[in-house]
Amino acid sequence: MKRKIGIVGATGYTGVELLRLLSSHPDVEISYVTSREHAGSRVDAMFPNLRGYVDLEFSAPANDALSECALVFFATPNGIAMKSAQVLLDAGTKVIDLAADFRIKDIAVWEKWYGMRHASPRLVEEAVYGLPELNRAQIRAARLVANPGCYPTAVTLGLLPLVEKGLIDLDNVIADTKSGVSGAGRKAEVHTLLAEAGDNFKAYAVAGHRHQPEIAQTLSNIAHQSVNPVFVPHLLPMIRGIHATLYAKLSAEADLQPLYQQRYANEPFVDVLPAGSHPETRSVRGANFCRIALHRPGNGDQVVVLSVIDNLVKGAAGQAVQNMNLMLGLAENTALRQPGLLP
Amino acid sequence: MKRKIGIVGATGYTGVELLRLLSSHPDVEISYVTSREHAGSRVDAMFPNLRGYVDLEFSAPANDALSECALVFFATPNGIAMKSAQVLLDAGTKVIDLAADFRIKDIAVWEKWYGMRHASPRLVEEAVYGLPELNRAQIRAARLVANPGCYPTAVTLGLLPLVEKGLIDLDNVIADTKSGVSGAGRKAEVHTLLAEAGDNFKAYAVAGHRHQPEIAQTLSNIAHQSVNPVFVPHLLPMIRGIHATLYAKLSAEADLQPLYQQRYANEPFVDVLPAGSHPETRSVRGANFCRIALHRPGNGDQVVVLSVIDNLVKGAAGQAVQNMNLMLGLAENTALRQPGLLP
Amino acid sequence: MKRKIGIVGATGYTGVELLRLLSSHPDVEISYVTSREHAGSRVDAMFPNLRGYVDLEFSAPANDALSECALVFFATPNGIAMKSAQVLLDAGTKVIDLAADFRIKDIAVWEKWYGMRHASPRLVEEAVYGLPELNRAQIRAARLVANPGCYPTAVTLGLLPLVEKGLIDLDNVIADTKSGVSGAGRKAEVHTLLAEAGDNFKAYAVAGHRHQPEIAQTLSNIAHQSVNPVFVPHLLPMIRGIHATLYAKLSAEADLQPLYQQRYANEPFVDVLPAGSHPETRSVRGANFCRIALHRPGNGDQVVVLSVIDNLVKGAAGQAVQNMNLMLGLAENTALRQPGLLP
Amino acid sequence: MKRKIGIVGATGYTGVELLRLLSSHPDVEISYVTSREHAGSRVDAMFPNLRGYVDLEFSAPANDALSECALVFFATPNGIAMKSAQVLLDAGTKVIDLAADFRIKDIAVWEKWYGMRHASPRLVEEAVYGLPELNRAQIRAARLVANPGCYPTAVTLGLLPLVEKGLIDLDNVIADTKSGVSGAGRKAEVHTLLAEAGDNFKAYAVAGHRHQPEIAQTLSNIAHQSVNPVFVPHLLPMIRGIHATLYAKLSAEADLQPLYQQRYANEPFVDVLPAGSHPETRSVRGANFCRIALHRPGNGDQVVVLSVIDNLVKGAAGQAVQNMNLMLGLAENTALRQPGLLP
Repeated sequence: MKRKIGIVGATGYTGVELLRLLSSHPDVEISYVTSREHAGSRVDAMFPNLRGYVDLEFSAPANDALSECALVFFATPNGIAMKSAQVLLDAGTKVIDLAADFRIKDIAVWEKWYGMRHASPRLVEEAVYGLPELNRAQIRAARLVANPGCYPTAVTLGLLPLVEKGLIDLDNVIADTKSGVSGAGRKAEVHTLLAEAGDNFKAYAVAGHRHQPEIAQTLSNIAHQSVNPVFVPHLLPMIRGIHATLYAKLSAEADLQPLYQQRYANEPFVDVLPAGSHPETRSVRGANFCRIALHRPGNGDQVVVLSVIDNLVKGAAGQAVQNMNLMLGLAENTALRQPGLLP
Repeated sequence: MKRKIGIVGATGYTGVELLRLLSSHPDVEISYVTSREHAGSRVDAMFPNLRGYVDLEFSAPANDALSECALVFFATPNGIAMKSAQVLLDAGTKVIDLAADFRIKDIAVWEKWYGMRHASPRLVEEAVYGLPELNRAQIRAARLVANPGCYPTAVTLGLLPLVEKGLIDLDNVIADTKSGVSGAGRKAEVHTLLAEAGDNFKAYAVAGHRHQPEIAQTLSNIAHQSVNPVFVPHLLPMIRGIHATLYAKLSAEADLQPLYQQRYANEPFVDVLPAGSHPETRSVRGANFCRIALHRPGNGDQVVVLSVIDNLVKGAAGQAVQNMNLMLGLAENTALRQPGLLP
Repeated sequence: MKRKIGIVGATGYTGVELLRLLSSHPDVEISYVTSREHAGSRVDAMFPNLRGYVDLEFSAPANDALSECALVFFATPNGIAMKSAQVLLDAGTKVIDLAADFRIKDIAVWEKWYGMRHASPRLVEEAVYGLPELNRAQIRAARLVANPGCYPTAVTLGLLPLVEKGLIDLDNVIADTKSGVSGAGRKAEVHTLLAEAGDNFKAYAVAGHRHQPEIAQTLSNIAHQSVNPVFVPHLLPMIRGIHATLYAKLSAEADLQPLYQQRYANEPFVDVLPAGSHPETRSVRGANFCRIALHRPGNGDQVVVLSVIDNLVKGAAGQAVQNMNLMLGLAENTALRQPGLLP
Repeated sequence: MKRKIGIVGATGYTGVELLRLLSSHPDVEISYVTSREHAGSRVDAMFPNLRGYVDLEFSAPANDALSECALVFFATPNGIAMKSAQVLLDAGTKVIDLAADFRIKDIAVWEKWYGMRHASPRLVEEAVYGLPELNRAQIRAARLVANPGCYPTAVTLGLLPLVEKGLIDLDNVIADTKSGVSGAGRKAEVHTLLAEAGDNFKAYAVAGHRHQPEIAQTLSNIAHQSVNPVFVPHLLPMIRGIHATLYAKLSAEADLQPLYQQRYANEPFVDVLPAGSHPETRSVRGANFCRIALHRPGNGDQVVVLSVIDNLVKGAAGQAVQNMNLMLGLAENTALRQPGLLP
């Protein structure tokens, strides 16, 4: 029998992407999709690609209905899941938050970056950071998973082997990252209009971005010391895709290509490209992969790691489905087996 | 001495385009630029391309300041100019409205399509429709000019010679038009986000669009009989440019290429391409031209006219500057002499 | 046991799209993929989205290997399949040509438009035009299928119900069509460079395009009289997607919405949208659907049909897989069940 | 009287951009435009934006005609100007090479990166590197100017004040750069097709790019010691624009904002944005500016400099016109006074 799944706040891009992926999942059934604003209207009227796949209307969120689900995704803005998760967990429903409510363990840091009081610090403690390549066993056992941010997924997977093995100077790590505009969500805003963000490129939030402390927390945990990388995000004139260009200095000799290939040999969704490659964001368009390539210009101690994901898939909904599969005891790659769409 | 010019509502795309064009105009001085919302902030903070060119802050609109101008442009939403124009005209200030308030002579038709009561029907009667290729002499003498819509400019210039000479079946005219998203303005809206309108194409408003009655009015006036073309607009995944593909049936034999070349021989901004050409929107990017090519597939009675403009230039701000030059007795092409930006 | 499948000329966009779709097909195995130029190099080195999905090298084409396949796709330029199909058919291998070699029944017409002598006129006679919505039974029984062109698929499906029922004036049909650049293939050419075709829009081949006689042939067959629509293609600044805007005049009263819904009620890949809709190309990105909407502006006798497909899927590789499924006796929608990628 | 100007190889993007800019130059006349391949065809047939501006045909290159010019631009591939410059210089014609033939002083380095023997090492010695912000006086006196590369212009202007003042650790400089596809030129190539480079992002040439030694040479000259920055270029899915994100470590305390403002106070084409800004490539689209913003995240010793140019203007043709103005004793900003095209 299929497990019932709920999605709270399914009118954004992570929502429609969850619907697209789950619509072909053989073991779960999307039974409840909420939107306060669009309650009563058909899901496929808003997202016509789902005509014939999702025969549902948006409902106003209601805890009774949600708590009948085996698992509920929160595809909501920051600050929503932290108020609703406890009730669902108490009812035996598992929860994955695609927003940032449970990502940062230090409540003071979270409150500073997200500009609000945290409503459930105790759940932050319980929540597992949903990067399967790092925390697979804990995710399998978790009731509550904090799905990682899009940039942190690309950056962390790109640096993980080097940090785990202690091979780089941790004071000298730079993450120059570039994202398509779907990362900004499906909100009406001037700066992401096609007439503003199209045919244009710029950096943003150079003074500080919320994903920096998330990356710093994960890398620090791995390194058992404080790591505080420089993080500069940029906005790409395209819809999907993140490219992280990562700079580090080797502090010990290392053979990078086998290091990465061994670290990720059993990972279904991390693909280490042949030496000298340049991964393209389009190679993962619509797919749950992170593709990584390693460079050492002039064979010096400078390492350049290139890491690409689809921000809506491995950077959000795909990784959430991967986590769901783990939490429900299903094959990890169920509903995630499609190659990217190229061209 | 330079004439003082005001722009009401200069925070949209027609506003910034007026500023770009007028900043190099030798005979006028932009002296007053208004925005209720952004009063007090620098113009070039919003539009950094104007750094070094426009040393002004936005002001709250005030009739005293505006009426010191020789001419005021309204780059406002529909329904604003009709409330403010009379005061300025009374003070001796000329007015060009880039919105639709004075375009449609039949008040009932206007009120139906624009969904509000008209505040100054008498001024509608006085206003001259600002298509220089049709009404140059009246524009020169006008106090109040209704700057044409973007689609109507491309469609009307494309059909004008055929309608003037009575060469086509007027019951069988189709205008299939395509516009870049800047035509929708600089408003925060979901459907013109890069993530929605990018990498996508669709028709819209097939049931009826406000530019259809404007086109019908002009063509009917020329033909001295009612013309009611089929008009279907589409949204292009790009920023600037309109392409009108116009279909008509010849009702009499005609030699199209010389007909168009002669009609537009003295027009500074209409360029009839060699027979067999396919005009590209990029050939007019940033320039005030309308480029037209004529086709008669299989040499039958079917005519296909291709007409391109930059919707923000010949379709809005450029044509408005052209009208201003005429109204102020200046050389018609002043500040409009730059070629398009290609690639 | 899986059937062996070959693809001749798999380095173009229809080739990689066939590989993407077939890589998840449970009943067939891609066993042989040819490219003269890239023989010996890995398929997934050229198309990195297929890493982990297609573990093959390109081979030089060889008839022995191809004739071991149950079915061979020709994803080659025009003029190749007509020279090779007979040998394969003789060996019992079925053939689907994605190029134009077998689409036009009148050899003289074909030779005029394609600029070469036809090498196997007899096979043209035998070949079935692979539009399942029109010829499903014949396709099931066919050895040789001519996969329809991309524009003809969108246009024919958009007009089919009207022409079958004899409801429109056949002398007055206009197809204004717009295509993404992937329709031009993966050839190094100046006019489809991003710096040329990006941020730009133009018509092309207004004097005549090869897809016009193909459309005319199909509509004439349905109507049992000569139909010769006006056909004007345009190039969109995007990768995938065709939008056909179709104009016709009703010659008899008709209720369009139920007419189309009934005609396509049992079609798995034609989706008639609710009245008043505007189909978007992105709703079918990567999916095998044709989505159609019907309009009758002002409730007059003018019909406007909007029809969208992904030119690489329903317009090429997806339709070819649909035809293959029919020819091999498999469920028609196998490997074609994914929704489109939106945004 | 206007000076005669020639352009060799005017069919590429730097060529058409030179034509666009020079067509409004009051002091020079484009008298001779060459293209071996297109000799005899009209310039404005290839570049329709120039209809009405450039009334010329392409000619086959001929030294007599070129040597009648006051100055000749080489907008040719690498390796052409080095063979032809001497003859023109001997005839008293000044030369600006927009390719790389005279940029690198160390012939061995040049030959390694450009893969050919240098034909005129003596001229390399004489040539002045045409970055006016660095070498204005020498450019004024030069017969032969090597116009800088696009990336080197953006990177060098972004780092110049820091290197001149000796404020940064020169072993730790990283230039993460991103360019629109027009930087790859108007050549028919698969990887810059819209269907390949559109909606996609990737790094390239991470192992080594020709612009790295050019940047290293200039910075080393300024620093009077060897500087060898890490340089990683990326390809943006858009036409025009370069964004350099530059990382350096302060080795001494510095007040960056006044440092840059003072260094560039008298520069007509370098614009230092207010502290905290994020320059956008579109703010310089079609304009000759370099816009720079300075960041020091967390007020630590890490400096992030953001630098944008239009690769075809300040990165190529605009800078070449600026150099021409200096070499011919004209006002430096003649024909370069237009603001960027936004949106």
